[in-house]
Amino acid sequence: MNSFDLIIIGAGPGGYPLALRQAQKGWKVAVVEADQVGGTCLNWGCIPTKALLASAKGLHFLHQAGKLGLTVENVGFAWDRVQARKDEVVRQLRGGIEKLFEKAGVTLVRGVGTLQSPHRVAIAPTPGAKDASSPSSCPANEIEGQRICLAVGSVPGVPASFPQDRSLFWTSDEALHCKEIPASLLVVGGGVIGLELGQVFAQFGSKVTVVEMMPQILPGLDTATAKRLLPVFKKAGLEILVGQKVEGLQIEGGRVVCQIGGAVRTFDRALLAIGRRPNLRCLEGSPLSLDRDGPFLKVNERFETSQPGVYAIGDAIRGPMLAHKATYDAETLARQWNGEPVTPDYSAVPSCVYTYPEIAWVGMSEEEAQKRGLAYTVGRFLFSANGRALAMAEGDGQVKVLVDADGRLLGAVLWGPEASDLIMEPTIWRALNLDKHGMERLIHPHPTLSEAFLEAYENALGRNLHG
Amino acid sequence: MNSFDLIIIGAGPGGYPLALRQAQKGWKVAVVEADQVGGTCLNWGCIPTKALLASAKGLHFLHQAGKLGLTVENVGFAWDRVQARKDEVVRQLRGGIEKLFEKAGVTLVRGVGTLQSPHRVAIAPTPGAKDASSPSSCPANEIEGQRICLAVGSVPGVPASFPQDRSLFWTSDEALHCKEIPASLLVVGGGVIGLELGQVFAQFGSKVTVVEMMPQILPGLDTATAKRLLPVFKKAGLEILVGQKVEGLQIEGGRVVCQIGGAVRTFDRALLAIGRRPNLRCLEGSPLSLDRDGPFLKVNERFETSQPGVYAIGDAIRGPMLAHKATYDAETLARQWNGEPVTPDYSAVPSCVYTYPEIAWVGMSEEEAQKRGLAYTVGRFLFSANGRALAMAEGDGQVKVLVDADGRLLGAVLWGPEASDLIMEPTIWRALNLDKHGMERLIHPHPTLSEAFLEAYENALGRNLHG
Repeated sequence: MNSFDLIIIGAGPGGYPLALRQAQKGWKVAVVEADQVGGTCLNWGCIPTKALLASAKGLHFLHQAGKLGLTVENVGFAWDRVQARKDEVVRQLRGGIEKLFEKAGVTLVRGVGTLQSPHRVAIAPTPGAKDASSPSSCPANEIEGQRICLAVGSVPGVPASFPQDRSLFWTSDEALHCKEIPASLLVVGGGVIGLELGQVFAQFGSKVTVVEMMPQILPGLDTATAKRLLPVFKKAGLEILVGQKVEGLQIEGGRVVCQIGGAVRTFDRALLAIGRRPNLRCLEGSPLSLDRDGPFLKVNERFETSQPGVYAIGDAIRGPMLAHKATYDAETLARQWNGEPVTPDYSAVPSCVYTYPEIAWVGMSEEEAQKRGLAYTVGRFLFSANGRALAMAEGDGQVKVLVDADGRLLGAVLWGPEASDLIMEPTIWRALNLDKHGMERLIHPHPTLSEAFLEAYENALGRNLHG
Repeated sequence: MNSFDLIIIGAGPGGYPLALRQAQKGWKVAVVEADQVGGTCLNWGCIPTKALLASAKGLHFLHQAGKLGLTVENVGFAWDRVQARKDEVVRQLRGGIEKLFEKAGVTLVRGVGTLQSPHRVAIAPTPGAKDASSPSSCPANEIEGQRICLAVGSVPGVPASFPQDRSLFWTSDEALHCKEIPASLLVVGGGVIGLELGQVFAQFGSKVTVVEMMPQILPGLDTATAKRLLPVFKKAGLEILVGQKVEGLQIEGGRVVCQIGGAVRTFDRALLAIGRRPNLRCLEGSPLSLDRDGPFLKVNERFETSQPGVYAIGDAIRGPMLAHKATYDAETLARQWNGEPVTPDYSAVPSCVYTYPEIAWVGMSEEEAQKRGLAYTVGRFLFSANGRALAMAEGDGQVKVLVDADGRLLGAVLWGPEASDLIMEPTIWRALNLDKHGMERLIHPHPTLSEAFLEAYENALGRNLHG
């Protein structure tokens, strides 16, 4: 009864798809979740951030409605309702996953799982769960599994120098649940989380300063694009400082005080957004030791850790710490277990930033292509020459592609309207290694934003029609 | 001096790309345009409609802003500014094409072209051009060409029973330029134009009735989807009557009176949107006669008419009357002329409707697959189970796909947020005849709307994770 074909620790975007896939194959599956199903992405990451960004973008639109010939007065917002809507979206999606588990016959075990052996997981009650709305259904103190997969996700990386007082010094968790908009906010880190939450708070009235230690925002993004975006975010009300450190963070008179580039600066709140590290709570107090690869668990191409029978996927192992990468790992592992000869390939993992404008990229940046000594040509197209973008009054943005002589795509980066969905076409190009003869067979509907990728691609081949 | 390698009649989305392509190859090209470059699509079709729809959708958003926790008062609009912005978008894009012609060395001949022989086109001044802002640059009364291509586009089909008074009885041209919103509007025809313009006027305050003679709106669209959309448009304020005829249209007391289904109805204005027919003005008074294919010019697979040396593309020949189909014809013809062994293939021409929600489809409808006796399975996914759609508060919509046993896509139809851009992924699937092994190599970013297609596709294969 407490024995399973598969035990998965973590019900996030790695764990829950793996559970469903193997349940579809008739396996008896248990998922151990210390907190909420859906993991960081659904509960404290992607989804709530996107919900807040939708309200922020809506507010931005209200202020810009005159551009479309529309008139409004007394534009404002009710922060509690913005937050309540966000929570409702999360609740709805979480309920969806719970139903999927029920339907598929997956056993959801609520509690903290600790790896006791390659086939046993001890379960303990979760101390102070973030949102303990659902009753615990832990069937036992210990469960057994033929295989165990660690889909444990990650937690915000908090350096020792960051003060402990979470009422003033936020991680993304506190920022997403804050009751009031601070008058001023320091965001430490100019990656995806810092920019997305920075834009939310700036739109809702905070004076926001984003400080990034690296010489550019969004490390990994094509450098020229990252640079081009600085004035875009400045116009959106974000002060962004790159190549600078925040030092000496402390509390003075109930406010956050620090030095940035030698100057003393004061803020109402500070948000730490400098990245995440694997959540290896399942190994705390475990008799097993698993080999590491830096902060990550070391796995082979079959996602097996140094302990035979124990697997790991998602943020716990090396690779982009993204929800869809975790899901891809889950799908790949499931296919391996089901007998397909596949190995993971991370060369076409798209990255999306849901600011407005949205930013998305896939494959190599120009710097990476240069570093690898690859021959390529660059193609560019501005959304200001795209009919649909102009019709939408969203003509700010650009597509940039790197293409080899046959039209194979090395990389693409887009910023502008709907970039997070438009990145799918370059992603297909890259993942399937398609060439220019493929593109010649496609008809892009007119007028659509998707034409911008076509134009940039043709520009790289020296044969674009427009621009 | 008045002799060219290629004369193209019509500077729309068929003619201008062909001109640019052949100019890129060093050909001496003239384009004869009786009115404005950009053709119907840019000047009186797609682009101005999409610009008006952007304002309409914006107004809709203002009324719904409370959903996102936002507050506004006194929502309204200035119709003259809505129209002025639309005109500015058109002007900007038109200016872009004129610059491309200049840069490429294409000679723009303003005037009405008449086919005098397989190598000669007579030019006459355009009587009462719709928007004669640019000076005529007609170099002569007659020009000569090695080849002639008729890229003449189409005009609204106006039956004899439709009264001539264009102040009360509009075609799309008058609707797009109207100075005031009529209190009530009869839209004759429930196709793309009727629904798009109907929604614009309904949003801006008209009481709109759309009457479609066929049993469904959007003929060609999957029947179940067309049916499902009726309550959606009803909620958007459109009265839609399908399978009904408008009869006895006349003026009474300065208003439009007619019978619909036996009942007498009265409206302030009527908009005729029952389709378009090829614009064959270039053959009026021509000594040449070209074979027809119904209302269209008959061409072979090399786009050549019954008159050797005279070609035709776009709306003048059979196929979907869409801007991107005309551009595809132009690209295909250019590639044929440049020595590539290609023939036109219309099996993956996407169709888009830019209402809100947007509607888009590609390939076969379920009815067509049945008619052809093909084996398929249906896959569906609702946007209400898509995280990004919920985060955007745009959870209304569905993806439906028809897939064969190998995962090859017979057809797809989407309605919901950004459908006109999301249709590109199914379009690629269909155009390149990709199968399920292709899909397994793709990583869809999370949370994005593009995941909805993946889910519907997997649903068709009986292996979807969600729903």
